[in-house]
This record gives sequence, C-alpha cells and structure tokens, in this order.
Amino acid sequence: MSVYKKVEIVGTSKESFAGAVKAAVAEASKSLRHMSWFEVVEQRGSIQDGKVNEFQVTVRIGFKVE
Amino acid sequence: MSVYKKVEIVGTSKESFAGAVKAAVAEASKSLRHMSWFEVVEQRGSIQDGKVNEFQVTVRIGFKVE
Amino acid sequence: MSVYKKVEIVGTSKESFAGAVKAAVAEASKSLRHMSWFEVVEQRGSIQDGKVNEFQVTVRIGFKVE
Amino acid sequence: MSVYKKVEIVGTSKESFAGAVKAAVAEASKSLRHMSWFEVVEQRGSIQDGKVNEFQVTVRIGFKVE
Amino acid sequence: MSVYKKVEIVGTSKESFAGAVKAAVAEASKSLRHMSWFEVVEQRGSIQDGKVNEFQVTVRIGFKVE
Amino acid sequence: MSVYKKVEIVGTSKESFAGAVKAAVAEASKSLRHMSWFEVVEQRGSIQDGKVNEFQVTVRIGFKVE
Amino acid sequence: MSVYKKVEIVGTSKESFAGAVKAAVAEASKSLRHMSWFEVVEQRGSIQDGKVNEFQVTVRIGFKVE
Amino acid sequence: MSVYKKVEIVGTSKESFAGAVKAAVAEASKSLRHMSWFEVVEQRGSIQDGKVNEFQVTVRIGFKVE
Amino acid sequence: MSVYKKVEIVGTSKESFAGAVKAAVAEASKSLRHMSWFEVVEQRGSIQDGKVNEFQVTVRIGFKVE
Amino acid sequence: MSVYKKVEIVGTSKESFAGAVKAAVAEASKSLRHMSWFEVVEQRGSIQDGKVNEFQVTVRIGFKVE
Amino acid sequence: MSVYKKVEIVGTSKESFAGAVKAAVAEASKSLRHMSWFEVVEQRGSIQDGKVNEFQVTVRIGFKVE
Amino acid sequence: MSVYKKVEIVGTSKESFAGAVKAAVAEASKSLRHMSWFEVVEQRGSIQDGKVNEFQVTVRIGFKVE
Repeated sequence: MSVYKKVEIVGTSKESFAGAVKAAVAEASKSLRHMSWFEVVEQRGSIQDGKVNEFQVTVRIGFKVE
Repeated sequence: MSVYKKVEIVGTSKESFAGAVKAAVAEASKSLRHMSWFEVVEQRGSIQDGKVNEFQVTVRIGFKVE
Repeated sequence: MSVYKKVEIVGTSKESFAGAVKAAVAEASKSLRHMSWFEVVEQRGSIQDGKVNEFQVTVRIGFKVE
Repeated sequence: MSVYKKVEIVGTSKESFAGAVKAAVAEASKSLRHMSWFEVVEQRGSIQDGKVNEFQVTVRIGFKVE
Repeated sequence: MSVYKKVEIVGTSKESFAGAVKAAVAEASKSLRHMSWFEVVEQRGSIQDGKVNEFQVTVRIGFKVE
Repeated sequence: MSVYKKVEIVGTSKESFAGAVKAAVAEASKSLRHMSWFEVVEQRGSIQDGKVNEFQVTVRIGFKVE
Repeated sequence: MSVYKKVEIVGTSKESFAGAVKAAVAEASKSLRHMSWFEVVEQRGSIQDGKVNEFQVTVRIGFKVE
Repeated sequence: MSVYKKVEIVGTSKESFAGAVKAAVAEASKSLRHMSWFEVVEQRGSIQDGKVNEFQVTVRIGFKVE
Repeated sequence: MSVYKKVEIVGTSKESFAGAVKAAVAEASKSLRHMSWFEVVEQRGSIQDGKVNEFQVTVRIGFKVE
Repeated sequence: MSVYKKVEIVGTSKESFAGAVKAAVAEASKSLRHMSWFEVVEQRGSIQDGKVNEFQVTVRIGFKVE
Repeated sequence: MSVYKKVEIVGTSKESFAGAVKAAVAEASKSLRHMSWFEVVEQRGSIQDGKVNEFQVTVRIGFKVE
Repeated sequence: MSVYKKVEIVGTSKESFAGAVKAAVAEASKSLRHMSWFEVVEQRGSIQDGKVNEFQVTVRIGFKVE
C-alpha cells in the first residue's frame, strides 16, 4: 500500500498562473523527491501602479513517501 | 422557455490552464451542439521528474437542449 | 491603522485567464487608486461555434482607503 | 441494491425559482424515466432593461438506473 | 446580553420554496416561542411521474432564549 | 474586451424569494445602468409572531462597465 | 404537508466509519421516533500510541414531526 | 462507545468574539451537562450609529450523551 | 492530449460506505469503459425502524474519452 | 419594502480581531449612513520578526438604501 | 499553553476508507510522535478493469509540539 | 521570483482567539524564519465544568523559502 504526503507551496510569476505553478514545483523539487501531482488551492496576486505585478498560486503538492 | 444541460469534462494541456480548457471544449464539440458556456470546477496537474507534466482542468460545459 | 476596501470585477480575454485578470485590473485602474492585490473568485467563459470564445475571471480587488 | 444517476439541468422561468425547477424537470422527463428527486445547485438570472428577465435554476436530478 | 438558539427544520410544499419555508415556520411555532429569523440551508424536492411532487427546504430557525 | 462589475444587494419581499430578487434589481436600477445578470448568494428572512414576516435575498448583480 | 426536524449527533466506533454512524443512530433511537435519513457532515477520529483509536462521524439525522 | 450531540447557539457580547462565545456557553450550561467542545460557525454583529453595537458568534456545542 | 469525462452515480449498500462505492462502480461498468478514478461527493443513508437501512454514496466517476 | 446594500471592507488592528472589525466599521462610517450589520468573511494577519504584527479582518457591511 | 501542528497524508487501502486512514496514520507514526487526532479531508480512489482498485483518503493529522 | 511555503499550526489560549494566534506564531518562530502572514482556518475550543476552558485557532502560516 502506498502512502503520499501533501505540502502547500505558493509560487509566483510575472506572466501567468501556469508560470506560478511551475515556480512552486521547481522550488519544491529542490527538497522533495517522487512528486506526483498538484492541486490548485488559491489564486491571488499583487498590483502595483495600477497593473498586475505578480500572479500568486497556492498549490498542494502530493509526493510518495518511501 | 429554454433549458440547458451541463456535463463535466477534464481537459489536459502541456502548456497552460487555458489550453486545458480549450482541449475539453474541443473534445466536447465532437458530440455536443449548442455549447454556450463553461465553468472551471477544479485545477490540478501531474508532476514528472520534478516538473509539471500536464495541467488538468475540470470544466462544467452548459449547452442548450433543443 | 490602515483600512482597505474590496470591489468585485469581471475581466475578459480572448487568450487566457491571466489576460482576463489584467483586463479587470486595467479597467479598475481608471477609477481606483492605491490598488494593492486581487483574489480570483470565479473562472468561467463563453463558447461559440464549438470553441472557447472568451475567458471570464471574477476578481476581488483590494485597495487602500485614504 | 439500487443505483441512481444524477444529471445537471438548468431550467428557466419568467415567474419564479419554482417555475424554473419545473421547467428543468419537464425537459428531463422527455428522455429520463424513474426520476426520483432534485437538488438545487445554483440560482441565477438575467436582467433586461433594469428588470429581472428570467430566473435560472441549476438542479441535479437523480433517477434510478434499471 | 441576549442569547439565541438555532434548530434545523425541513418544510415541504406542493407549490413553491417560499411555501415550504412557511410550513417549516408554522410547524416550529407549535413548540418554540420568540422565533426571530430563518436561514435557508438546502433546497431539494421529490419527483413523481416526471413532475415535481414536492419542494423541500431546510431552514435554520433562530429564536431567543429567555 | 468588455469588463463587468458586481455589487451585492439585499432585496426583501412579503411574498416570495423571487419577489425579493425583483425588489433588489428594481432598487439597483435607480443608480446602475447596463445590468446584465444576478446570482443568488444567500436566502434568509425574519419571523414575527410565529410567521414569516419577510423574505430576504442577497444577490450579486453584474453590470457592464462602459 | 409533512415537516421534518434534523439533529446533529456524533457517533464513535473502534472499527469503521459505518460503525460510527450506526452508533449515532442507535443512540438517537432511544429518544427519537420516525427517523428517516442521515447525512454525513464530518469524519474525524482520535489517535493513541500511533494508532487510530476511534472513528468519529458527525451525522445530521432527519425525523418526521408528528 | 461514547456518543455526542451538538446544538447551535448564538452568543452576543459588547466587547469581543471571545466574549460572545463565553455568553453562548454560559447560557447553554443552564440546560446542558457534560459539554465538551465548541466550534465557531459564523461571526456577525450589529452596527448602531456608525459603531459596532454587538458581536454575535454562532457556535456548535458538543456534549456527551449519557 | 487526453480528455476525461465525469458522471455522477449514487451507489447503495447495506454494509458500508466502501460497499456503496463498489456498487456505483459496478453499475457504471455496464455502460462505461476506461473508468479511471472516483471522487466521493456526498455520504447519506436511510433509516428504518431506528436502524441504518442503507448507506448511500454519491461518487463522481472519471473515465477516458477515446 | 426595504433594500440593503453590502460593501466589503478590510480593517486592521494591532490588538485583536474585534479591534480590526471596529476599525473597518469606523472607516466605513465616514462615507456610509444607516449601517445595520456586519458579517466576518475572512481573518488573516501579517507577521514581522516572528511576531503577529497586525490582525486583518474582511467584513461585509450591510446598510439600508434610502 | 499547548501548540499542535497538522500534516496532510494520503493513505490507501484495497478494502475500505477506514483501512486507508489506518495506513496513513501508520506511515505518519514512523516520523511523528504525540499524534492526537485526524480529520478526513478528501475521499477518492482508483478504478481498474471496471472495479475499485484502491480507496484513497486524505487526512490531516494533528500532533502536539513539544 | 519568490516562493512561499505554508504550514498549519493550532495555537491555544485561555483568553481569546487573538491570543491563540499569537501562541501559534510564537511556537512556529522557534523553527521557521521569514514568516510573512497567517490565515485563520478554524476556530474551536474546549469546555470544562460548563465554561470555556481554551480557545483553539488553526492558522496557516506562510513563510518565504530562501
């Protein structure tokens, strides 16, 4: 029987929501192995001088526990 | 009085959430006519070798019943 | 102590969800100053001739009250 | 052991939310047998010339699978 | 300082959602005094012979505790 | 690209939920133009002398920003 | 027109979620008659010495008011 | 196997949310024994003359059934 | 790019929630191929003579569209 | 028939959640009359140097439209 | 004053939801001490050859921080 | 691009919800650096001898990953 763990990461991107997810996964890959899927939990962003400055996506990342 | 029906489709894309929605609608267009709108229900994805492999978006698609 | 207000705007884009958010913020910037962040509340869209016609994103925009 | 299936229908009415539910059920009765119950999922409507033009109710309809 | 209690009642009506709420409140009035407000929690109904048979509304009723 | 704004209004009616929605839209029409749709957010009401005194419906009204 | 009331009970079991529901219903049957259905609201449990000690299920039980 | 019941109480306080919870529990203690925990369900309040007049907290209180 | 569809089924069992899920999947397998996963949406049940008569589980079943 | 409008305000306080609500209402009272109630929508805060720096509460404030 | 931490684990079982919870707790017990309770967050599963292959339960596990 | 992580902590206080949040943040500060914000997820508490014994607040704490 396999068991998974989930962690919650917020990635950011100047371009898009997809970019923010990729940033979160890239960061997580530095310390986690066997990552298997992500779930989008929240989408927000910051505004500066009347323009979107940054897209922020909170994802839950699931990875297999060995 | 018009009546609509909704079906739930999961589209996938290597690139973006918008791409996954387009894939879902394209597939649905093979069997459904008079599609009118979609609602995003869930956004997930798969991870492979520490990178996002696929964006997966569940949409509810509304279409007019004739 | 600072106080913020939130308004709810629906932006649209032919291209992507991020584009729809940008449209919402751009419109809001015409009448609001000191916008600080946005929260995605809903993602929908219209379909025409079996293709995605428009991405629609409802955002809550927070701005500082002077 | 009995098994049920649910479909999601949007009915509309010029008069009331109850009328919109009835329209959804009436339409569904053309193709489904053994309908047993409905659950209201969403209530919306369109506005025209500053007045409610149409009540729209999304219902999930449960019917017995033979 | 006043304190309120809430109970959960399901009213039914052959006609409308409002009728189902009234039935729930009428029944509750037999045993509760000082009822002050209601909140709609759920709207469902039964279907018979392809037609809506009954509207069912779950309400939480708040009443003042003496 | 069109942009919409949403405002949140609570309408009331002695008769029905539909009536409360109409009251909210009628009031909003005094100050807003180009209203396009409403979404029901909450349904509550007040009780007096053991009877429903008033139906209260919170709607979000969407209107086009020119 | 029939009217129902709902009460909220937490049952517990050493074995399973189904067992916890049965315990809740068995206890409720001591004081309530005409129970008709239950809805699972929450599933939790206690852990002791690194093992599940108890499954706890909160159910809303609906019963007919005579 | 122990069984718990939950009731829903609204406490009020001129001072704070914690005060409103204490008021709810104090009132409940007049008729309930073996109260074990509370869960905050909703936080509201009334406003008078442009100032907060009262904090209102709805809590679900769990107590052991003997 | 693969595309999936979801349908909503209610399975029932005299024994357990897991049994109700199995019944839903078994029934769905009669008409659907390439089923891939299920998601539990709702857990309810009927009560008869003061005892649980039937566990009812609503699942969304995802299957690959060829 | 009376009609209400709701606006969404974020108040902040160095001390407590209640204080943040009071700040939101105080600010709103500068431009709104006939405020009647508030609903807590979200509770967050900022952290600085390992300590809570500020409590932030989003409230929806309801006021009567004349 | 005691402080707790929560982690999110997905356990799996060929048999039942309860079994999946036990697997999650057993795995967590390898690295965590003072586990005190769990909360069920999500219930899903995989399907193979038209049959339930695996029950998957996401639980949040709370444990005391020393 | 910056990336944040979130952890879930339950703080407790004999006095108030704000106190419980402070306890959670204080504990987290022992092992985490660069904490930036918190989000309230759940508010509960224990009752003893008919009085509130402890306020328990679950917060998600966001901190910058270096």
